[in-house]
Amino acid sequence: MPRYAASVQYDGSHYHGWQSLKSGLPTVQAAVEAALSKVANHPVSVVCAGRTDAGVHGSNQIIHFDSDSVRSERGWTYGSNANLPDDVAINWVKPVVDDFHARFSAQWRRYRYVIYNHPIRPAYLPKGVTWNYRPLDIERMQSAACHLVGEHDFTSYRAVQCQAKNPVRTISRLQVSRHGHLVVLDIQANAFLHHMVRNIAGVLMTIGAGKHEPDWAKTVLEARDRTEGGVTAPPYGLYFVDVGYPEVFGLPDSEPNPHFVAPLLPW
Amino acid sequence: MPRYAASVQYDGSHYHGWQSLKSGLPTVQAAVEAALSKVANHPVSVVCAGRTDAGVHGSNQIIHFDSDSVRSERGWTYGSNANLPDDVAINWVKPVVDDFHARFSAQWRRYRYVIYNHPIRPAYLPKGVTWNYRPLDIERMQSAACHLVGEHDFTSYRAVQCQAKNPVRTISRLQVSRHGHLVVLDIQANAFLHHMVRNIAGVLMTIGAGKHEPDWAKTVLEARDRTEGGVTAPPYGLYFVDVGYPEVFGLPDSEPNPHFVAPLLPW
Repeated sequence: MPRYAASVQYDGSHYHGWQSLKSGLPTVQAAVEAALSKVANHPVSVVCAGRTDAGVHGSNQIIHFDSDSVRSERGWTYGSNANLPDDVAINWVKPVVDDFHARFSAQWRRYRYVIYNHPIRPAYLPKGVTWNYRPLDIERMQSAACHLVGEHDFTSYRAVQCQAKNPVRTISRLQVSRHGHLVVLDIQANAFLHHMVRNIAGVLMTIGAGKHEPDWAKTVLEARDRTEGGVTAPPYGLYFVDVGYPEVFGLPDSEPNPHFVAPLLPW
Repeated sequence: MPRYAASVQYDGSHYHGWQSLKSGLPTVQAAVEAALSKVANHPVSVVCAGRTDAGVHGSNQIIHFDSDSVRSERGWTYGSNANLPDDVAINWVKPVVDDFHARFSAQWRRYRYVIYNHPIRPAYLPKGVTWNYRPLDIERMQSAACHLVGEHDFTSYRAVQCQAKNPVRTISRLQVSRHGHLVVLDIQANAFLHHMVRNIAGVLMTIGAGKHEPDWAKTVLEARDRTEGGVTAPPYGLYFVDVGYPEVFGLPDSEPNPHFVAPLLPW
């Protein structure tokens, strides 16, 4: 059967993650499969690049699926969007070669973690940002982040229930920036362990708030013990933003996340 | 009784407006009054600067209320926020002189209308932006907007059911800007008629999409007939962002809307 790649964006607030272990709970995967199945007129199963937790969002989650149904790229995209709830949308669909695999062909993934840093909790996007009322010092956070860049054993930063065999991952970028009251963590790695971004966010926020020195990120890393790593940050501010594949597959470039670009600038 | 001014932010998606004519429907006013009443320990009624429609948001709605209860500014603010749902928050509370009136003391109001201009509908903030898939030319929109600046009879731009006695209003600023896929209308006037911003947004989008020439905004204005004005734009992208009062009242400056400042910039 011909294979297709597609890009999915979603607000994860109302979903139990991309995929749920318990049946019957709403998942993004189920919504996407239902919509594609309607367009294909046969049951469609999808495989994703990175399964996101409950409450985590995605702006460019990549999936693949197989179908014998003949539809144009536009037909797949617009047909699916007409059948999806308003918090999930397909960005594009493209035919790909049979050996493309959304998960195994991926060379890197990017996540973005958005913190609203203000004494008053935000009434907009209450599940689209993580609220932290303590003033965060991003220079301290960036110093801490630098200890995590490179190839390391991230045992201290993964969930106890993480099932990956190998806890070694390579972070190629980990950048902390401030945009007004928002503090943004940008992180790229070959792959991520369970809760890895949220555990890193938890450690960096603790350091940013002055409760530990930047070196603590390294101390935690070297302990190789999750119990040293403190709290897991909430899922609300976490966005799965991009995946990299070899150019040979010819997937569209991702747009810089289109949904959050400065709509409300100073008057 | 001592009088207080306060600033309220809210995501209006789930409310039937600031105030509802039908009882029993959830309103932002009812949520705010319930929270302030708990903190005051007596029933509190509030008066707002501008009543927003169902689905419209506010980042700096100004209210006043009277109370004999002695609470610190912090006590009012944090106490109320602890009793408010997660889509409504108090920004600040301040004692004011008795002749301050949130509505009658206001010299001007500002609204912001946010359009997501992209072929694919947005999965984030589906009720926080107005989606328009037709490419919008903001130069055409700005030319059209210039016809509306100044003192005019806005009969063509107000809802048929608008109850204001006088349809003359003065727009002191009406600016159209693009930020990536977002097109933002910023509008300031002494006061607004019912649906006035949404009707202006409807006309400007029609012109931006190329269906009418920029002069059409003036033709509609001069017709003094609502039926000439085309569709009322949806409430979702509309934010009540600021109110101006004489300096003598000493209210805090509003922050440039803190919730939407470029969290997700290009990687």
